[in-house]
Amino acid sequence: MTAPLFNKVAIVGFGLIGSSIARCVAEYPGLANGVVCVDRSQAVCDRVLELGLAQQAGTDPALVSQCDLVVLATPIGAFADLGAVIGPHLTAGTVLTDVGSVKQSVIRDIAPHVPDGVHFIPGHPLAGTEHSGPDSGFALLFKGRWCILTPTPGTNQAAVDRLSAFWSGCGSMIEVMEPGHHDRVLAITSHLPHLIAYTIVGTATDLEEHLQSEVIRFSATGFRDFTRIAASDPTMWRDIFLNNREAVLEVIQRFTEDLTALQRAIRWGEGDKLHELFTRTRAVRRSIIDAKQA
Amino acid sequence: MTAPLFNKVAIVGFGLIGSSIARCVAEYPGLANGVVCVDRSQAVCDRVLELGLAQQAGTDPALVSQCDLVVLATPIGAFADLGAVIGPHLTAGTVLTDVGSVKQSVIRDIAPHVPDGVHFIPGHPLAGTEHSGPDSGFALLFKGRWCILTPTPGTNQAAVDRLSAFWSGCGSMIEVMEPGHHDRVLAITSHLPHLIAYTIVGTATDLEEHLQSEVIRFSATGFRDFTRIAASDPTMWRDIFLNNREAVLEVIQRFTEDLTALQRAIRWGEGDKLHELFTRTRAVRRSIIDAKQA
Repeated sequence: MTAPLFNKVAIVGFGLIGSSIARCVAEYPGLANGVVCVDRSQAVCDRVLELGLAQQAGTDPALVSQCDLVVLATPIGAFADLGAVIGPHLTAGTVLTDVGSVKQSVIRDIAPHVPDGVHFIPGHPLAGTEHSGPDSGFALLFKGRWCILTPTPGTNQAAVDRLSAFWSGCGSMIEVMEPGHHDRVLAITSHLPHLIAYTIVGTATDLEEHLQSEVIRFSATGFRDFTRIAASDPTMWRDIFLNNREAVLEVIQRFTEDLTALQRAIRWGEGDKLHELFTRTRAVRRSIIDAKQA
Repeated sequence: MTAPLFNKVAIVGFGLIGSSIARCVAEYPGLANGVVCVDRSQAVCDRVLELGLAQQAGTDPALVSQCDLVVLATPIGAFADLGAVIGPHLTAGTVLTDVGSVKQSVIRDIAPHVPDGVHFIPGHPLAGTEHSGPDSGFALLFKGRWCILTPTPGTNQAAVDRLSAFWSGCGSMIEVMEPGHHDRVLAITSHLPHLIAYTIVGTATDLEEHLQSEVIRFSATGFRDFTRIAASDPTMWRDIFLNNREAVLEVIQRFTEDLTALQRAIRWGEGDKLHELFTRTRAVRRSIIDAKQA
């Protein structure tokens, strides 16, 4: 039997993603010998031990010093502080990664705190649900989903390969990408959709009271799908928008222009323009089904 | 054994909704003795007979004269012409209904063609998928979903009760509503979400080519949910926007104001405003789950 890829994995921030990684380590052989939980909430640490998701759990950042893989899985707004606190406890040879949804800001916040000899490889598993906390994770979360790694130039290739193997072992498909490119792609595929969903659900809750209850009752007509997205973790998403500001503002601008054009087509009864767009968008769905991402 | 609610049901326009109703008639006892398909496409009629979804199928509108329930299930843009063609063949005592997503325009287009003694009761089952055509229907489509009826004042109550019983037999929950109120509620719960989904998918397809393929590959991050909605039938949706123009334009305006406010909060780094909204929208999801519409 070959040795697992890592000895101990520290998961810092034990929410949906962190606890899903821990479940992968427990269920899939060859990933690691054990999991150490670091979370600023003692209640979360207690729960993690109760669920048997880690062999050790505590609020002390020094716990990472015994681990050869350290995964930062808190909301990205905490990363600057976290880097300063965790950095001194990282030991040479350790692979340090994260699961944040923005990559340029993560590099800005973490890289200055990484000691020599530690391999910092930013990462982003494209997986999640609208649920949060250590109870919400599951080992199949990453299965068939992409995990994007955005190593900076000069990163140790063996470390990248080892981390890739770890994510493959969790069921992911791996893609290596330039951090700025990642942030632009995600701005359109993920950040804008979430912002739109938050907006439309907010618009509905601002309606006159007698309409509000109707919106809930009759939500199974499109609106419902948006409420699922708009139920995602508020802190995580606040941090994403604040940290991918430029790319997000750029796609909002494009979106608004397009919506204004449609609004005008509706006002002037330009049915052909509507039909043409709706036919084009239907084809996009087909591409996604063909790409097996549906 | 009691007699079924209706003898023969004519379904005019045999797509997702029409063929689902036909499947309900076939699978659930007590609804009707048989189904007659009227569709302007001979190919659809042939397919309907092949699938065994109707005992008779043809393009001749006179086929409705032998039926005591007539369900109009074409896109609503066809209703004005359809009313003129079908009207003369309706016989006294018949219940005439439709499944259109806008109710004021349907009343405007159909009511003038309804002969005395025919009970016209506009209806709207809040159910659907992104698929179209007679093959896409299924008998469980309406189960646990609302069906809204919008009878005009003076409508025969026994006819409303009989149609309600028919939809209950298909698995629906019934709600009676004023047509204008229906159109306002649906503008926010259904029409705006669809328009937004069409817009965002359109925005993505207008990206530079190298980004486009990435959008497909990495769609499992929010965007994917929008593509499903944006794959809905183009003709049906064109007709909805053109026929519920005032209500849709009003909610687009509200939505745009709210999006602009969020855009500004992102630009100026106002994290508290974002967090407050995202927390509020999460609660809406909970209401929908509590209302068993999730």
